[in-house]
Amino acid sequence: MASHRLLVPPPEALRRPLSIPDRLLLTPGPSNLAPRVLEAGGLQAIGHMTKEMYQVMDEIKQGIQYVFQTHNPITLAVSGSGNCALEVALFNLLEPGDSFLVGTNGMWGQQALEIGQRIGARVHPMIKEPGGHYTLQEVEEGLARHKPVLLFLTHSESSTGVMQPLDGYGQLCHRHQCLFLVDSVASLGGVPIYMDQQGIDVLYSGSQKVLNCPPGTSLISFSNKAKQKVDARRTKPFSVFMDLKCLANFWGCDDKPRAYHHTTSVIGLYSLRESLALMVEQAVRLPTVTAVAVPAGYDWRDIVSYVQDHFNIEISGGLGPSMGKVLRIGLLGCNATRKNVDLVIEALKEALRHCPRNKL
Amino acid sequence: MASHRLLVPPPEALRRPLSIPDRLLLTPGPSNLAPRVLEAGGLQAIGHMTKEMYQVMDEIKQGIQYVFQTHNPITLAVSGSGNCALEVALFNLLEPGDSFLVGTNGMWGQQALEIGQRIGARVHPMIKEPGGHYTLQEVEEGLARHKPVLLFLTHSESSTGVMQPLDGYGQLCHRHQCLFLVDSVASLGGVPIYMDQQGIDVLYSGSQKVLNCPPGTSLISFSNKAKQKVDARRTKPFSVFMDLKCLANFWGCDDKPRAYHHTTSVIGLYSLRESLALMVEQAVRLPTVTAVAVPAGYDWRDIVSYVQDHFNIEISGGLGPSMGKVLRIGLLGCNATRKNVDLVIEALKEALRHCPRNKL
Repeated sequence: MASHRLLVPPPEALRRPLSIPDRLLLTPGPSNLAPRVLEAGGLQAIGHMTKEMYQVMDEIKQGIQYVFQTHNPITLAVSGSGNCALEVALFNLLEPGDSFLVGTNGMWGQQALEIGQRIGARVHPMIKEPGGHYTLQEVEEGLARHKPVLLFLTHSESSTGVMQPLDGYGQLCHRHQCLFLVDSVASLGGVPIYMDQQGIDVLYSGSQKVLNCPPGTSLISFSNKAKQKVDARRTKPFSVFMDLKCLANFWGCDDKPRAYHHTTSVIGLYSLRESLALMVEQAVRLPTVTAVAVPAGYDWRDIVSYVQDHFNIEISGGLGPSMGKVLRIGLLGCNATRKNVDLVIEALKEALRHCPRNKL
Repeated sequence: MASHRLLVPPPEALRRPLSIPDRLLLTPGPSNLAPRVLEAGGLQAIGHMTKEMYQVMDEIKQGIQYVFQTHNPITLAVSGSGNCALEVALFNLLEPGDSFLVGTNGMWGQQALEIGQRIGARVHPMIKEPGGHYTLQEVEEGLARHKPVLLFLTHSESSTGVMQPLDGYGQLCHRHQCLFLVDSVASLGGVPIYMDQQGIDVLYSGSQKVLNCPPGTSLISFSNKAKQKVDARRTKPFSVFMDLKCLANFWGCDDKPRAYHHTTSVIGLYSLRESLALMVEQAVRLPTVTAVAVPAGYDWRDIVSYVQDHFNIEISGGLGPSMGKVLRIGLLGCNATRKNVDLVIEALKEALRHCPRNKL
């Protein structure tokens, strides 16, 4: 040990104080944190396996059951982003060789397709131009043709601003012995969703959208049908971190004593608890992400920069298939006010007046 | 839509305010958050792909390079717990069929073994009673016999309170064309570690230990040798969320423009930045987790409860192989003071006086 020396000096940048601007966040996420959520973020840590923490987790579970409108016992928060929740769903539901039908009409379907392929599933994409959605008839054709064990649809294609109708799709899947997986990351709390009544088998969402909570946790629930598929696996999921049996046990969703699985994001869970408590108090629900075509001749980056530099507002460009083509404006939770709508419209008007045109 | 009804009522528990006790955390983690870290947790969110956030990420990268003592360009924070960082290492370094040598002298080696098996590696455990560690000679025998591509050792076996020496192991591995992976979750900042000089190829640690930061982010770095192994893969890693190439790009570790990968835990990253800034200011380093045998005749749960109920201090029981056998006391970062040592000894004395004996 004595022979080692400090060859990497302490970085000068870390001797300066942290400086974070306070900005209106009208992107598709993260959204601004609600005051009560902000306050929770400043609380002291406690152990992840204490009775107080188990109570916070139990309350989160009830909160998710409420916002998902489900009675599923297997309902919990994942210590990871929405992408992580999608992997929790796919890693547990799919085994190598399983047939998997994916609605690929934007970024999130492409992501599900990529993960399915890596797991070794037989993935059947229903390819659509960005901006499209799937009719019951199109889905029925896919189910009949590919006999999948799982269908993936995105309720809120935040990369294109499209909302997928959900009524009837779950029941259709079940007639074809298929499970129904839905991404509601950008819609939950903004557009009504009824997990049990709509026959959704696995539903997940993110914390940093309408919930006005920091990114880093996500919400997920599994129906009894989905649980049966997981129970009947012939192979273990590749990931231990994302293994549903361990997660469900740690969240008190089975009848066994809770065993250590991983150190949960305790502060993130305080915040999530508070954001769910706010949902319990609120009734108003609004659509969430609006995609606007970039006017001809403009560079989207100029508009986004102008709005940020002159109005202190963050909005976003496109993502994946919509990259370069649209601007995306999020009105999420506490940010969904008439004042903010007026503000961002004013900012966009000004931007179009001042940004260079015919640059492209 | 009109036909759906709210069948799950808003939970009453979420109408009550959140209540979190302020307690001295002398478990092996999470530890108490330092005041400056607490403050960062209460800041407002900003976008995960803004220039301000990229600066925070760059500063975190430099901070990790300092505390790891490494010049590795591929150095970043994972949006997940230490277990998640272990999976990031194994998912990227191992392919099905690869030979993997694992020091299994406690909980963390068992975890690495389990993940290796799920990935389809040929896993060779070096089995040891909890409490043991590995000599250079033992490792050399394993390397010669199994010709592994990767060796896993735990620097800080927090389940048993054992510290693994690290000098010479990296160089030994390299003579056998093997990469060296080290878990320093419970030691980093408490026991000196010199990644480059010790020839460690992949090193990871957690935020919620000596760094006094909320759980939910972890630190990881890959040497050039490790990067070459990842670059030479014939298959893609099973996980997209944990795919090193995407993570490294998003953290600005390659020469390509940063592309969206996942929504990082922006508030968690503020906190991590502040905890690394504190490390830059500090010089004192102390051992971290002490495992104490449970005195004969006592139930460990009684002692842990007594100390919590009467002294407002959290300590832990055993974990995995040490479950039921030991008490584990963490003195992590700002909690590593003489006053806290005296306090926990006093609390343990009182507990032994008042807890039932010969119960077992």
